[in-house]
Amino acid sequence: MDVMDRPPVTEETIGAAAGRLDGRARRTPLLTSPFLDEIAGRRVLVKAECLQHTGSFKFRGGYSALSALPEAARVRGVIAYSSGNHAQGVALAARMHGVPAVIVMPSDAPALKIANTRALGAEVITYDRAGESREEIGEALAGERGLTLIRPYDEPQVIAGQGTAGLEIAAQVAEAGVGQADVLVPCGGGGLTSGIALALEARATGLRARPVEPEGFDDTTRSLAEGRIVTNDRTSGSICDAIVTPAPGRITFPIMARLCGPGLVVSEDDCLRAMAVAFLRLKIVVEPGGAVALAAALFHPDAVQGDAVVAVASGGNVDPALFREALERHG
Amino acid sequence: MDVMDRPPVTEETIGAAAGRLDGRARRTPLLTSPFLDEIAGRRVLVKAECLQHTGSFKFRGGYSALSALPEAARVRGVIAYSSGNHAQGVALAARMHGVPAVIVMPSDAPALKIANTRALGAEVITYDRAGESREEIGEALAGERGLTLIRPYDEPQVIAGQGTAGLEIAAQVAEAGVGQADVLVPCGGGGLTSGIALALEARATGLRARPVEPEGFDDTTRSLAEGRIVTNDRTSGSICDAIVTPAPGRITFPIMARLCGPGLVVSEDDCLRAMAVAFLRLKIVVEPGGAVALAAALFHPDAVQGDAVVAVASGGNVDPALFREALERHG
Repeated sequence: MDVMDRPPVTEETIGAAAGRLDGRARRTPLLTSPFLDEIAGRRVLVKAECLQHTGSFKFRGGYSALSALPEAARVRGVIAYSSGNHAQGVALAARMHGVPAVIVMPSDAPALKIANTRALGAEVITYDRAGESREEIGEALAGERGLTLIRPYDEPQVIAGQGTAGLEIAAQVAEAGVGQADVLVPCGGGGLTSGIALALEARATGLRARPVEPEGFDDTTRSLAEGRIVTNDRTSGSICDAIVTPAPGRITFPIMARLCGPGLVVSEDDCLRAMAVAFLRLKIVVEPGGAVALAAALFHPDAVQGDAVVAVASGGNVDPALFREALERHG
Repeated sequence: MDVMDRPPVTEETIGAAAGRLDGRARRTPLLTSPFLDEIAGRRVLVKAECLQHTGSFKFRGGYSALSALPEAARVRGVIAYSSGNHAQGVALAARMHGVPAVIVMPSDAPALKIANTRALGAEVITYDRAGESREEIGEALAGERGLTLIRPYDEPQVIAGQGTAGLEIAAQVAEAGVGQADVLVPCGGGGLTSGIALALEARATGLRARPVEPEGFDDTTRSLAEGRIVTNDRTSGSICDAIVTPAPGRITFPIMARLCGPGLVVSEDDCLRAMAVAFLRLKIVVEPGGAVALAAALFHPDAVQGDAVVAVASGGNVDPALFREALERHG
């Protein structure tokens, strides 16, 4: 079935995902520091999804999709293509359901990421980026074994799972006494951004989701400005690898176009600075792609409106050497 | 009044502190990772107090003590001696109450710590470690201005504040389905350890608090073994500076002697390894002194009993250069 023929994601879909994730996903804290407020010139509230299981929000979508499958399909297992956070999220979700997961990863993926995904119980199948197609390998395996493909963002139950972070933000921001704010979200294919936007539409009308991207990989920002999907020239070569995709998704883009404010773009050095600030002031570990929203909140205050801003720190799976560099430059 | 004449800390005192801290202190998460369980050979649950306001549990005690003062005393302000976490905890608590705080710090304290304490609104008064007595300076100031001294651990309302972390542990560990476990606590003067021990006595009889200290600064471990207060030979020269004290407190020691299991001792390199594991697997920043309990849980499994262990990560205020070293050695 084409992805566009899937039922749309609604408040009910997200609420149902939240019910399935209750007690499974972590309700991550909304962190604050007077030092961040001073840098930004307004209140800054940081949704620390780097503290989610497997170190990123991707566990929400993976668990949501797996738990939404019909029992007969689920027990046969799932398959995903990913060299990063989606792989680990799906692998742990499958392990928690006691079903097999196959993750198709490029053979040149970092050894640690392959090892981690295996350690979470998944079968890792590597392919040669240059000569092989991961889609062909995946389809062949899915057919042979009856596996269900879990797409990283153009999948309604994945979007619904990511949207549960938005439900939490709506509640936590209200508890903090904030009624109006931009909610800045690191954006790759748009699963997290569109899921949060839908949750805020339903539960917090004073909050507006806005995607944030690194310079040179601002496909969603440009797509929103042009009102149609446009693509990146490059899809590699960024330290923000976790959020680099060719273009916003076919399901996620119309949601973002309807609900989101304009995109924001930050430099790689902004990301490293934001990582150092998060280290010093919040005591959390954020990866470069997960730090774009915090970077925008802190270092591009003129691009944001209102007395408060929410930044999602979407993941923390960063190589120690790169983290050391961030501290060396900006710590 | 001598500290020993103060009313004892009870379940009621801790419960009252929890009421005053509700909505002020952060209910820090209890974090887990299958990778930690694998290292330790049992379930590991990490109470992430590094995510507390000001980056350590000390905010709890500072806020508890300030909020327990009679209004007339509180408005005159408070004073504390500290070059570290207690200073920042008291400073922020005073700011939240809108009252003055004076912090007496050695003039050779790291510039960043002095700047942070000032940025939190406190008046910092420096003294020369070699030639001046901080007690004399403090007493003179307290007398002149009518300030109330907030001791770092031998103060019942501070112990009660730290004990609120124990109430949270009792609830969170039960939610995680764990009934029996050692609760390992980084121990300096014993305020956090004794507060948690009292909370567990009241709310989680299957949990037992145990102090953890760095090699060479194991005054509490030896005091518990000997049944009387003994002192450290040195009180400086450890990367675990946040938990180095001359001896356990006169109020805290009898509580620990009655309620705690034997102390544990770890090396400085164990701490750096635990910091790297916390970075990689939990995405939190832990300082060396805050990492001693996690180090014991991970690397001294034979010294712990049961199928699960709780480790308190008590603070995250670590110098970036030292954190880089931990990642370089063990990341």
